[in-house]
Amino acid sequence: MNASNSRRLPVGVFDSGVGGLTVLRELREALPHEDLTYLGDTARLPYGTKSRSSISRYAGQATSKLQERGIKLLVVACNTASAVALDALKEQMRPVPVIGVVEPGATAAVAARPGGRHLVLATEATVRYGAYREAILRRDDQAEVRELACELMVSLAEEGWTEGSIAEAIIRRYLEPLEALDFEPDSIILGCTHFPLLRPAIRRVVAEEAAIVDSASTTASVAAAMLADLELFNERAGPGQLRLMATDGASRFARVGGRFIGEDLDASDIELVDL
Amino acid sequence: MNASNSRRLPVGVFDSGVGGLTVLRELREALPHEDLTYLGDTARLPYGTKSRSSISRYAGQATSKLQERGIKLLVVACNTASAVALDALKEQMRPVPVIGVVEPGATAAVAARPGGRHLVLATEATVRYGAYREAILRRDDQAEVRELACELMVSLAEEGWTEGSIAEAIIRRYLEPLEALDFEPDSIILGCTHFPLLRPAIRRVVAEEAAIVDSASTTASVAAAMLADLELFNERAGPGQLRLMATDGASRFARVGGRFIGEDLDASDIELVDL
Repeated sequence: MNASNSRRLPVGVFDSGVGGLTVLRELREALPHEDLTYLGDTARLPYGTKSRSSISRYAGQATSKLQERGIKLLVVACNTASAVALDALKEQMRPVPVIGVVEPGATAAVAARPGGRHLVLATEATVRYGAYREAILRRDDQAEVRELACELMVSLAEEGWTEGSIAEAIIRRYLEPLEALDFEPDSIILGCTHFPLLRPAIRRVVAEEAAIVDSASTTASVAAAMLADLELFNERAGPGQLRLMATDGASRFARVGGRFIGEDLDASDIELVDL
Repeated sequence: MNASNSRRLPVGVFDSGVGGLTVLRELREALPHEDLTYLGDTARLPYGTKSRSSISRYAGQATSKLQERGIKLLVVACNTASAVALDALKEQMRPVPVIGVVEPGATAAVAARPGGRHLVLATEATVRYGAYREAILRRDDQAEVRELACELMVSLAEEGWTEGSIAEAIIRRYLEPLEALDFEPDSIILGCTHFPLLRPAIRRVVAEEAAIVDSASTTASVAAAMLADLELFNERAGPGQLRLMATDGASRFARVGGRFIGEDLDASDIELVDL
């Protein structure tokens, strides 16, 4: 396909569930004229507690579905899939470009606090594969990095209990071990797409001086820059179309996903697909 | 196969993950001479937030795997699968008998508090299909039933945060709406296999007079009675063998599952299977 045909294709966004809608939201802001096609693999979420081989297989299947529909850029909005499977997905999509959320998140953290102590809050799998640590140290060899798996924070965000004493107590409990290590972070990286919903609660628990870094907006900037570089901007003037697909549970996707994208969603607008 | 050959087969136990190990534990107590084969569908857990069709498909595939290996009785240790797919699984396994956990749980609750007000704590899917309500009212038309979806309690149990102020605050928050309804339960049914781990915390939050009903031990008694009825007891004298299978993540299964079965598990003892 030549570039002028490619330009009209949507940007594909893939996540294990609804969390990636926080990234989609930023992409819509940054790229208002682009069509965006989102696929949430809700039939097999969460990825964060699963093994490398399952995550890679699921991510590959989701990517194939978007590839079939035709996209000009793939954004892997899932931190776990970005941490575990990004290289394989790039290989699979070639020559279509692929962006994960880990590298932009690392870039943002290093920019915010050069030579700083970074604390990554993430899922078990993202922590296990140390992708943030590696990406940060590659950019800044003076940096210090610690990673914490915070699975309950995923459920908190899904349940919508994002503010108040329970959310703060859970965040505090996860951060407790840092005191014994005498590790006071200069930046807190929200290394799971669910965690931006908990940002106000995290803000109340951590030191005022600490930056809170969220990869969603940086990922959207990187996506915009990449479309510019490759001359792939859609040139029409009107607003882009949003298409939402899920592998299971349209009504739950709409109910829970609405909190992540920041607007009411209707279950009838969610297309169910099989992978 | 004739009855004497069937007798030597294991009892199959199926769950979406590690929660069913609370049922397995009771089965081992009740049936110490029986071989038990457990399959946890960890690659696709949790079932509790998924749709009827996905839950039915996953449960059918897990059941086929146990059927292939040869079992003389299937215990569906997952409340969600019992609530949503039990009839289909019975059809699939015929003539091998199948027991779910919902009916034994309802029996135990009605026996503990005849004519009582029952509160079912369960997953979203179990609540959505109202299986406990239906099973209780069929046994006792004087009973009153309310059901509450408590997804965060699943994650609490998986994370091992089963005691202390966070667990109690979360339980209290889930029970809050009952006050406005002026519904003071006589029995609390632990309608998810994860919840027995939270029993001490639940005990501290609910009224002293309320019974806490857990279907695991009743399910084990029903299984024992069924093997007796069908003359399917294994007649050897030695202890039964335990075989553990999972669809993903042997090391996580061992680490988290140990808390549910009440003993240390070794990842090398978990057989990974594909469904």
